[in-house]
Amino acid sequence: MEIKQKIEGANQIAFKRIVDADPVLVDIAPAFEVIPQMEDKMVIHSGPPITWDRMCGAQRGAVIGEVIFEGWAKTVEEATALLAAGKIKLGSNHNFRTVGPMAGTISANSWVYIVENKTFGNKAFCRQVEGMQQFGDYSDKALDGLRSWRDIFAPSLRAALKADGELPLKPIITQALQMGDELHNRHSASSALFGNAMAVGLAKARLPMDKLLPTLYLLKNHNLIFLGLAMAAGKAIADPARDVDYSTMVTAMCRNGTEFGIRVSGLGDEWFTAPSPFVDGIYMPGFSEKDAGFDMGDSAITETVGWGGFVLGGAAGILSLVGGTPEEALGYTREMRTITIGLHPTYKMPTFGFEGTPTGIDIRKVVQTNSAPIIDTAIAHKDPGYPKIGAGLVRAPIECFKKALIAFSRKYQS
Amino acid sequence: MEIKQKIEGANQIAFKRIVDADPVLVDIAPAFEVIPQMEDKMVIHSGPPITWDRMCGAQRGAVIGEVIFEGWAKTVEEATALLAAGKIKLGSNHNFRTVGPMAGTISANSWVYIVENKTFGNKAFCRQVEGMQQFGDYSDKALDGLRSWRDIFAPSLRAALKADGELPLKPIITQALQMGDELHNRHSASSALFGNAMAVGLAKARLPMDKLLPTLYLLKNHNLIFLGLAMAAGKAIADPARDVDYSTMVTAMCRNGTEFGIRVSGLGDEWFTAPSPFVDGIYMPGFSEKDAGFDMGDSAITETVGWGGFVLGGAAGILSLVGGTPEEALGYTREMRTITIGLHPTYKMPTFGFEGTPTGIDIRKVVQTNSAPIIDTAIAHKDPGYPKIGAGLVRAPIECFKKALIAFSRKYQS
Repeated sequence: MEIKQKIEGANQIAFKRIVDADPVLVDIAPAFEVIPQMEDKMVIHSGPPITWDRMCGAQRGAVIGEVIFEGWAKTVEEATALLAAGKIKLGSNHNFRTVGPMAGTISANSWVYIVENKTFGNKAFCRQVEGMQQFGDYSDKALDGLRSWRDIFAPSLRAALKADGELPLKPIITQALQMGDELHNRHSASSALFGNAMAVGLAKARLPMDKLLPTLYLLKNHNLIFLGLAMAAGKAIADPARDVDYSTMVTAMCRNGTEFGIRVSGLGDEWFTAPSPFVDGIYMPGFSEKDAGFDMGDSAITETVGWGGFVLGGAAGILSLVGGTPEEALGYTREMRTITIGLHPTYKMPTFGFEGTPTGIDIRKVVQTNSAPIIDTAIAHKDPGYPKIGAGLVRAPIECFKKALIAFSRKYQS
Repeated sequence: MEIKQKIEGANQIAFKRIVDADPVLVDIAPAFEVIPQMEDKMVIHSGPPITWDRMCGAQRGAVIGEVIFEGWAKTVEEATALLAAGKIKLGSNHNFRTVGPMAGTISANSWVYIVENKTFGNKAFCRQVEGMQQFGDYSDKALDGLRSWRDIFAPSLRAALKADGELPLKPIITQALQMGDELHNRHSASSALFGNAMAVGLAKARLPMDKLLPTLYLLKNHNLIFLGLAMAAGKAIADPARDVDYSTMVTAMCRNGTEFGIRVSGLGDEWFTAPSPFVDGIYMPGFSEKDAGFDMGDSAITETVGWGGFVLGGAAGILSLVGGTPEEALGYTREMRTITIGLHPTYKMPTFGFEGTPTGIDIRKVVQTNSAPIIDTAIAHKDPGYPKIGAGLVRAPIECFKKALIAFSRKYQS
C-alpha cells in the first residue's frame, strides 16, 4: 500500500475515535485521590514540560500561588526560594492525563473534574477555572478562589453528582455549540446548562445552606465555569486518538507561555515545539501589549478537538472579547475546514446551515496550505502576580507542524 | 408644523418608550388575584375579541380545556354546551393587560407571570407555556399541565421570587439575544439563564422536596419556559408606547386563529384586522398542511417589540424548527430594518457586529415598502383537541397596515 493511503486510512481511524467519543462527568475529586502519580510537593502545569528557570512570569506566579495554597511556604519569597532550589517537583499536565487553563497549575489538593470517555473507558482531569490564580495572581484574594473551590464548591458539586448521577457532557456541548458558545472563551450557554443540570443534584444532596447557596450563586454567575469541563472533555476525547500508526492528526496543542507544543497521533509522546506566539488581543483597562506574556495554557485542547477558534463562525458573541468582525469569524471556520480531516456529525453550527464543526487537524494540510490553527485565548501578564489582562486571537506556530512533518517522514518513510 | 414632522416626532417618543422600558418579574399569581376584571366563568384568549361561533378549532379546544380545568364542566360535551349557550364569558387578553401563547386562554385560577415595567410603572401578565392545552388539547394529560402549574410549579416559583427578590428581565433578554435566542420560539438561552436565576430563590425558599425537585426539573428541561416571560415583558414594554398622538408605530400584533389584528399608537384601542394567514411551516411526524389551523397567539408581541422574526438573523439555531437558510434569516432581519423606526441601543446582535435589534414597526414603512413583519410561530391544528403540530414562518397581513393607515389619515388629516 502507498504511504499516502496508509495515512488516509490511519487518519480516518483517528478522526472516528474523536467523533465517537462520549465524555461524561463522573466525579470531582482532589488530585491526590485520582492522579496516582501526583506526589507531595509537586505542581503540574500547562504546556510542554519546562523547568523553573525557563518558566514564564505568569506560570511562575501561579506555581508560587499553588505552593502557598498547599502550605509548603508562607510567603512569595519562601515559595520562590523553594522553587529555585528545586524543592518542588514540576511536571506537564498532559503527562498526567490532565489539562489546566492558562498556567494550569494543579497540586495534590486541587480538586479536578473527572471526565470519562465512555466509548473508550479512558479518563481525563481538569482543574477549575477561577480567573485569577490561573493567570499568575498569588494574592490572598486569588488563593481564596482555590480555597473556596476546595472547601465549598467542589465538594458540593461532587455531592450533587453522587446524588443525581453522572452527567453526560455531549448533549450540553451539542446544545452550547448551537447557542453561540465556541467552548474555549465563550461558555455562556454551556455554563448555564451545566448550572441547571447541577441544581437538581445539589437539591437532592440536601447540603447545608452555607454550602448550597454559595454553590448556586457560583453556577448562576460564573459564565466560564464550563471551560474546565470542556477542557477535561477535550482531553478525554483526544486521548484515544493517540498512537494510531501513520496518522498525521494532531492529538494535543498546548502552551506554557514559553513554548507552544503539539503532539501527533502517529508520533507518540513527542512534543514538537516552537516559541509561544504573541496574542493579538483586546486588553482590560490599565493594561496593554507591553504588559502581555506569550500564549499560554492547555485550553487549546478545545481547538484540538474542533472547538474554540475552529467554530468562531458560530460564536459571533465572543468578538466583543477577542475582536474581529462576524465575517472574519465565518472566514476562520471556513479556513479551518481546509486543515482538518472532516466535519463532526454531532457537533453542528446553525450559522453554517447545521454543518458539522471542522475536526481533526492534519499536520500535512497545515503545512501544505500554510494555514495554522486559529486559537482564541485569554492573555496573562508577562510578570508574576497579575490576574487576567486581556483576550484575543493567535495562530499556532507553523514550525511545530513542520517539525512534526519532518519527524513523520523520518519515522514512516525510512 | 407639517404632519410628517409631527409623525416623526411622535414616533421618536413612542420608540423611546420602548427603548427605555425596564421589565422586571415581580410576582407569579393566580389571575383572579391580580386581574381585577377577571370574573367567575370567564375565559380570556389570544388575539382580537371574538365570539364562540367564529372561534377557530384550536382556540375552542383550549377554551373547553379551561372550562374543564376550572370545574365548570366535567366533559367536553358539557363544556361545549355551556359555551354554545353563552354561559361562559369570553374576552381578549389585550383588554386585560394580558397576553397568552397560541390559544392563550386564561381563567381565574390560571397563574400568570406579573412583569412590571419599572420605568413607567405599568404591569402586564402572561400565562405559562406548556405546549399542549395552549394548542387546543383538552386531554387529561394536557389539563394536568395546567394543574401542576397551579399546584406545584407556579407557587414554588412565587416562593422563590419572594425569598430572593424580583428578577430583572432586561439583562436576561440582552444576554439571550447574544446566545442565539430570538425570544419567540427559541428560548434555549433565556430559559437556562432563568433556571439558574430561580434556583437560588428556590433554595432560599426552603420548599419541601416534593415541590422543589419537580420545579428544578421543569427549569432544567423546559427550554421554552421563558416564552411566557418574554411575552409578559413584551406587553409591559409595548403598553407605555400606546396613545401617542400622531404616532404610526404598532403597539400590538396578535391573532386568534381567525383574525390577525394590530393596534397603532396614535389610533387608540382599535384593532385593524384581516383574516389570519396560513403559516409556511415544518410539521411534526403524522401531521401536514391539511391539518393546520391559521396563525394564532398573542406571541407576536415579541415581534412588536423587535424580537422573534425580527432577529432571526441572530438566531440561526431556530431554522431547524421553522425552516430556511442562515442567509435568509440574515435577510429577514435586514428587511425588518426597513420597516422599523430604529435600532435598539441595548438589545444587540453579534452576527450583525453588535448592531441593535430592529425596533418599532412603522405602519407607513410597511405599506410603502410592501414588506410585512415576519413572524416565526408554532402551528396548531384546525380542529379542537390536538397538541402542537408544527412551526414555521408567516407574514403579518398587509391589509391590517393599510386599514390602519387609512384610519390614521382620516383621524389626523381631516
